[in-house]
Amino acid sequence: MKLAFEEAKKGKDTWTNPQVGAVIVKDNQVLGQGHHATFGHEHAEINAFKSLKDIDDAKNATLYVTLEPCSHFGKTPPCVQKIVQLGVKKVVIGQIDPNPLVSGKGVKYLRDNGVVVEEQLISSELNRSYNYFYKNNQPLVTVKYAMTLDGKINKNKNQRSIISNQAAFEDSQQLRSQQQVILIGENTLKVDNPALTVRDKKMSFPPIRAVVVRDINQISLDLKIFQTDEPIWFFSETKNLRTLPENVKVIVGEWTPDNILNYLTTQKIQAVLVEGGSFLQAKFLSAGLVEKLVVYLANKIYGSGLPAVWGADFDSIDFVEPTVEKLADNLKITTWRKD
Amino acid sequence: MKLAFEEAKKGKDTWTNPQVGAVIVKDNQVLGQGHHATFGHEHAEINAFKSLKDIDDAKNATLYVTLEPCSHFGKTPPCVQKIVQLGVKKVVIGQIDPNPLVSGKGVKYLRDNGVVVEEQLISSELNRSYNYFYKNNQPLVTVKYAMTLDGKINKNKNQRSIISNQAAFEDSQQLRSQQQVILIGENTLKVDNPALTVRDKKMSFPPIRAVVVRDINQISLDLKIFQTDEPIWFFSETKNLRTLPENVKVIVGEWTPDNILNYLTTQKIQAVLVEGGSFLQAKFLSAGLVEKLVVYLANKIYGSGLPAVWGADFDSIDFVEPTVEKLADNLKITTWRKD
Repeated sequence: MKLAFEEAKKGKDTWTNPQVGAVIVKDNQVLGQGHHATFGHEHAEINAFKSLKDIDDAKNATLYVTLEPCSHFGKTPPCVQKIVQLGVKKVVIGQIDPNPLVSGKGVKYLRDNGVVVEEQLISSELNRSYNYFYKNNQPLVTVKYAMTLDGKINKNKNQRSIISNQAAFEDSQQLRSQQQVILIGENTLKVDNPALTVRDKKMSFPPIRAVVVRDINQISLDLKIFQTDEPIWFFSETKNLRTLPENVKVIVGEWTPDNILNYLTTQKIQAVLVEGGSFLQAKFLSAGLVEKLVVYLANKIYGSGLPAVWGADFDSIDFVEPTVEKLADNLKITTWRKD
Repeated sequence: MKLAFEEAKKGKDTWTNPQVGAVIVKDNQVLGQGHHATFGHEHAEINAFKSLKDIDDAKNATLYVTLEPCSHFGKTPPCVQKIVQLGVKKVVIGQIDPNPLVSGKGVKYLRDNGVVVEEQLISSELNRSYNYFYKNNQPLVTVKYAMTLDGKINKNKNQRSIISNQAAFEDSQQLRSQQQVILIGENTLKVDNPALTVRDKKMSFPPIRAVVVRDINQISLDLKIFQTDEPIWFFSETKNLRTLPENVKVIVGEWTPDNILNYLTTQKIQAVLVEGGSFLQAKFLSAGLVEKLVVYLANKIYGSGLPAVWGADFDSIDFVEPTVEKLADNLKITTWRKD
């Protein structure tokens, strides 16, 4: 199961699909393994079967898979049929699929067809946003910022400061690649002028770049965000009156954090990264909607400047399970909201 | 030498004396070891000799000592005389003493008396403030604060927030015990009302509690700081007109950070901890006088409140050599100013 877990983590382009790994074992020998690599493509089990030297080796083998095998026709045919068809004797699963389309039905189908099914819980580290989404019916929101040792995220109000080192910058690209939506506020769009892409990484399903704006018609089309063709969503209070590039979608409404998340839920978005600025972060935190916090801590002091999170409307939010990682002389702190 | 280094760190009450460890070796066997434990008491070498089963074992032995042995009559007679007198053959020293009373003279005396002297550099971790003081002729200033993950040190301006957990609190007591002076501003004295003592630890030489105030006569004698008998120094702009407890000293002047450090240098203070608040810390940082920074990071967000360091007059101060320590769910970051 540990091997299947490691295998699962290799899937980097699964979009809203979970990361899944599978390992086929017979007579204490690993005969095959596979993972789900790309949204819409083969599931882990199928890839594991494909990796077998001889497909007949699946007969009477044990399949370790980190997630309950699917039982429905989605973008691919159901895995449970294949498992039964190949004569697998036993399936050990890491967790039941929280997706109501599958949940428990995969296990039932296998048992109904004479396959022994066991559960062996794996680390909750895998597919946290996938699990969160199906459990809570809303996306898992991560707030991320880089700050100095005195808690500043910018030296001057209307000019971007380079706070992080190269290692932290690269890590934050990695963090972006795990999201389906990256959300920023209008001021950050204007002041930082970010591309919001995942640099140096080809992804079949890059995260959607989303911006909360008052009036889409006031947004300059010269901004960097318009220079690449990953999708862009604008949450605007007003209707668009201009011709916009094809990759731009404008959603009109009153965009409180709750409303934004409700909309994203309808779009089956499971993982949202709020990247700034202070004001938008404060709004999401105040609304009690932030589940995960990632802070990159730079080894310097500004002494004055824009504070990380400001004007929020709560007393204190406690976090738990902090992990810290050294990125050269920067630190990365990852922590989860206390229930 | 590694053993001598470990031995040195046992000295917890050396005040302005360095931590020193000594090990006596003959025929590849450790025959004795000792450290300097308390200011004014025996030096490490003497304690190592005392630990020998037979004092004659010192004859032809090698003495490993983390610091150049002293050559002057201070609070104890010079160690080099004892070393020569006991017939030690070789002395391996970890570093030359930066104190001009000794520096090089100890080595010279030993060599003049036929003792072989070698140098084997030890980690710079030992006696950083002692070395800094003699190199720069001013105390090593550490700024310490506890802040939230969004850089706040207090939720409300005129009320103390408990930010750190118990482990961080205890660690900060340990940090205090390594200082000779703990310095705070008037507002911190009034709002936090701290005792500024090293709790749960009996010290023969507790740190002096120092406060920068505008007018000593306006300070309430009911404050906690007056309730214990460790020394208190007030840096006041005005003369004292009241009867104060015996442990209180008032030093009158214009107390810029530079002036404070100059005064402390005359008092041979090597290690100063600036504990707050934001304003005093900003003044010391702005004056370029802060060598070491210790940040306790609590696993929570306040969203609003008093920022760590505020209104400072510099662009950015870079730090190097960060170390991070987990104290339950708090983090301790220790870092040094970049030269």
